[in-house]
Amino acid sequence: MVRLTTSFGAVALLAFAAIPANAETPDRDEILGTVVEQRGATVQALRDWIALPTIAAEKRNTTEGAEYMRKLALDAGFKHAEIIPTDGVPGVFATLDAGADTTLGIYFMYDVKQYDPAEWSSPPLEGRLVDRPGEGQAIMGRGAVNQKGPQTAFLAAIKAIQASGRKLPVNLVLVAEGEEEVASTNFHQVVAVPQVREALSKTIGVFIPSAAQSKDGSANITLGAKGAIEFQLVVGGETSDKYPKTDIHSSNHARIESPVWRLVKALDTLVADDGHTPAIDGWFENVRPLTERQKELIAQGAKLNPESEVKALLGVGRWIDDEPYVTSLERLVSQPTVNIQGLVAGYMGPGGKTVLPGRAEAKLEFRLVPAMTKDEAVSKLKAHLTKRGFDDVQVTISGGYGPNETEEDSTLIRAQKKLFEQSGIPYSITPRSAGSWPGVIFNGAPLNLPASQFGLSRGGGAHAPNEWFLIESSDPKVNGIDGATMAYVDYLYVVAEEAESAAD
Amino acid sequence: MVRLTTSFGAVALLAFAAIPANAETPDRDEILGTVVEQRGATVQALRDWIALPTIAAEKRNTTEGAEYMRKLALDAGFKHAEIIPTDGVPGVFATLDAGADTTLGIYFMYDVKQYDPAEWSSPPLEGRLVDRPGEGQAIMGRGAVNQKGPQTAFLAAIKAIQASGRKLPVNLVLVAEGEEEVASTNFHQVVAVPQVREALSKTIGVFIPSAAQSKDGSANITLGAKGAIEFQLVVGGETSDKYPKTDIHSSNHARIESPVWRLVKALDTLVADDGHTPAIDGWFENVRPLTERQKELIAQGAKLNPESEVKALLGVGRWIDDEPYVTSLERLVSQPTVNIQGLVAGYMGPGGKTVLPGRAEAKLEFRLVPAMTKDEAVSKLKAHLTKRGFDDVQVTISGGYGPNETEEDSTLIRAQKKLFEQSGIPYSITPRSAGSWPGVIFNGAPLNLPASQFGLSRGGGAHAPNEWFLIESSDPKVNGIDGATMAYVDYLYVVAEEAESAAD
Repeated sequence: MVRLTTSFGAVALLAFAAIPANAETPDRDEILGTVVEQRGATVQALRDWIALPTIAAEKRNTTEGAEYMRKLALDAGFKHAEIIPTDGVPGVFATLDAGADTTLGIYFMYDVKQYDPAEWSSPPLEGRLVDRPGEGQAIMGRGAVNQKGPQTAFLAAIKAIQASGRKLPVNLVLVAEGEEEVASTNFHQVVAVPQVREALSKTIGVFIPSAAQSKDGSANITLGAKGAIEFQLVVGGETSDKYPKTDIHSSNHARIESPVWRLVKALDTLVADDGHTPAIDGWFENVRPLTERQKELIAQGAKLNPESEVKALLGVGRWIDDEPYVTSLERLVSQPTVNIQGLVAGYMGPGGKTVLPGRAEAKLEFRLVPAMTKDEAVSKLKAHLTKRGFDDVQVTISGGYGPNETEEDSTLIRAQKKLFEQSGIPYSITPRSAGSWPGVIFNGAPLNLPASQFGLSRGGGAHAPNEWFLIESSDPKVNGIDGATMAYVDYLYVVAEEAESAAD
Repeated sequence: MVRLTTSFGAVALLAFAAIPANAETPDRDEILGTVVEQRGATVQALRDWIALPTIAAEKRNTTEGAEYMRKLALDAGFKHAEIIPTDGVPGVFATLDAGADTTLGIYFMYDVKQYDPAEWSSPPLEGRLVDRPGEGQAIMGRGAVNQKGPQTAFLAAIKAIQASGRKLPVNLVLVAEGEEEVASTNFHQVVAVPQVREALSKTIGVFIPSAAQSKDGSANITLGAKGAIEFQLVVGGETSDKYPKTDIHSSNHARIESPVWRLVKALDTLVADDGHTPAIDGWFENVRPLTERQKELIAQGAKLNPESEVKALLGVGRWIDDEPYVTSLERLVSQPTVNIQGLVAGYMGPGGKTVLPGRAEAKLEFRLVPAMTKDEAVSKLKAHLTKRGFDDVQVTISGGYGPNETEEDSTLIRAQKKLFEQSGIPYSITPRSAGSWPGVIFNGAPLNLPASQFGLSRGGGAHAPNEWFLIESSDPKVNGIDGATMAYVDYLYVVAEEAESAAD
């Protein structure tokens, strides 16, 4: 949902000289040759996938998208691939047994965000190649970077290894969902299916492809992410006969209760008078403070992102409580939030209109930090409102999940560091993204697996018009689709090596 | 603004047998003959006026509307008529000295509410005659009932008296505004002009034409109205650099203040935790309790409007605090309110969206009762917010005025009662409308004049599509435009009589 916003603020750049020392992948040149040979087919595969948008919020192409995902897995060499039904959009589960000692999990999403073609400079389903001045040639289309581009590069990587006559260095377990853009409402059901859970339990961890390469060629490692829960509070004629069923003349407020005031009163109890500290009963019970290492990474990151630039980008002059920059970054990483995304009630045009609204809605979202959980947060919210008598305030949880975190010395993270170091790629470490992705589904009980992002490619415009993914890069330090594909090839070999050395 | 909603709830019907005893207007048949003769011209005059909509909110036809109003006054026999500039839309001031002992004030509005032609069954500016099943023939157009129809009937009445060779029984002072639909923002400036104020100060009171006849032919007398002030509270990047200038990614709420929470915190202080009792410092200081007579009128009204029907009409099952019906009606008449008309912030579409809004707005309105004033209410609101440190909450007063009230034994009201009794027209008395009109401009200092509504005609759809005004009535107890015109003729004579008897 918001995974592509991980790197603002809290990063630490460990600089390396740009030595052209490549990864130690066996027969790397041969595999690279195959990748280059396949490039036309890879770009066409991405274009074809963009042409079939699955949009869960619109119930669009959900069956077709799942079947297409299953076919993509089989085409890439997965031996087994099946559709896993859920209460919502189905998931896909696939395995590839390469006879290796190590098994790696991969998480895909086959859905995309909604889009309005009128806002695009190129038709969002056509995947046209466009010039991106100063960067090269990019494919433009909905899903290009989030997530069809990086995922297509990953599939191209395993195809290329196999096409060059080698076995994969790791076995693969793929789980894909079609509801990522609606907060992964039913994805836990996919992972709860016994054969899926069993297959995943044999992996050393699960990674999600990403496109985290910066314009200067540097990479980023993220050690976790906050959880997010989106929900709505509604009060009105639909929740109690104290309130009118529709907007009525405002003079009646003298004798009829207002759902808007009731919503304001309920909201008011959720944060302290400072306007930001969550005030839900017991909210901080399981909040873990930052470690010294996390603080160190935050302080390093602060040096790389000048405060004035970050403030200008965000359009603010001050941080909460006028705190210094590093404190504000520690907040960003460490504090759970209760945010109002939007308010909807009564007359919303210019000026005023004399109505007593029949309905009031607040759209909210929690961000959770370790060791809070989704169930804990939801039940604390409900208990808090019930205790205060807000039985006429309807709570609708539209989706969400808890936080995730992965140890810096886990195999998945060590492999990333090693690959970047071998390849001479400068990288930074984000201790925890303030944005969210559903890594907790692997990271939490019962699987308790490391879960991280990996990918060395570049794109932008996720959730926005003119989404793009770099195909041909004009800068040798930045990957186009061939480099993105080779990064996955290299990663699989390094993961295998690191897993074996850890097993020694 | 909301004057046409006066009669729901608090009315008392003093029933009379429907004796066809007409008012004691001299040469009444002769004047009636002239009214009937003029009817075609009167309907055409109304149609022409409807074709020229003045809409202050859209700055549409403001100069033209004022000039047209001036011309209408001169055409109707006013000897002097001039445009009075204001900081907004100009007013019109006109006088007609008939050499009478008594001078009567009249208030007109020449502006109309906005409209969307797509919602109308007949073009809103064409004033077509349409059948109204069970009622007769009506003219349909924006302004038909609010207020061009009743005002045209009044002008036709004074034309008919003069055309039949008689002098008017009273002298007239007309004041008109073109901003009634935007809460009479500058009308006080019209009345403050020395020659206007002096002319008004010689009147026995000011009345506003209305169309208050019910379908059963009964009439209504209203002894006052609540005041209304519309205002907006805004918080965001435009009011403080603590807040972002636009909507930004919601994860930033961990380090950046939310204008929405700030608005919620400010709103929360304005009403008590019961969700309806105003909690602004000193709010009830000048609130006068109901008199025994007002309570008596309310109790009489309750009998005429069955509670179940009123609840069904409003779409509610309960009154505030589950109070009994009569108590709820006493509240409606006696309690000042702080109402939220609407909320606007951040994402307002279906479901949620992970944004921290850059702006939050609440649209509110006060309803004021005697002896509260507009200035008092506005300064108490501002002092209340300032005392609590809400300097970043911007208050915009978009318009409003205080309450008005007129004694039941004033000449204007006695004349209405006498006319209804002479004519055998059943009528009810509303002690105070919970809706609002700017009568306080005459009613309050320095003029301190009685101010009331009068008119015996029928229409509907004010502020809504398909606004109409009855021209030909199929029920002899209900007035079409001739009856409406004759009611003004009769009223002027009864006012003159009552004023003279009061002077004796």
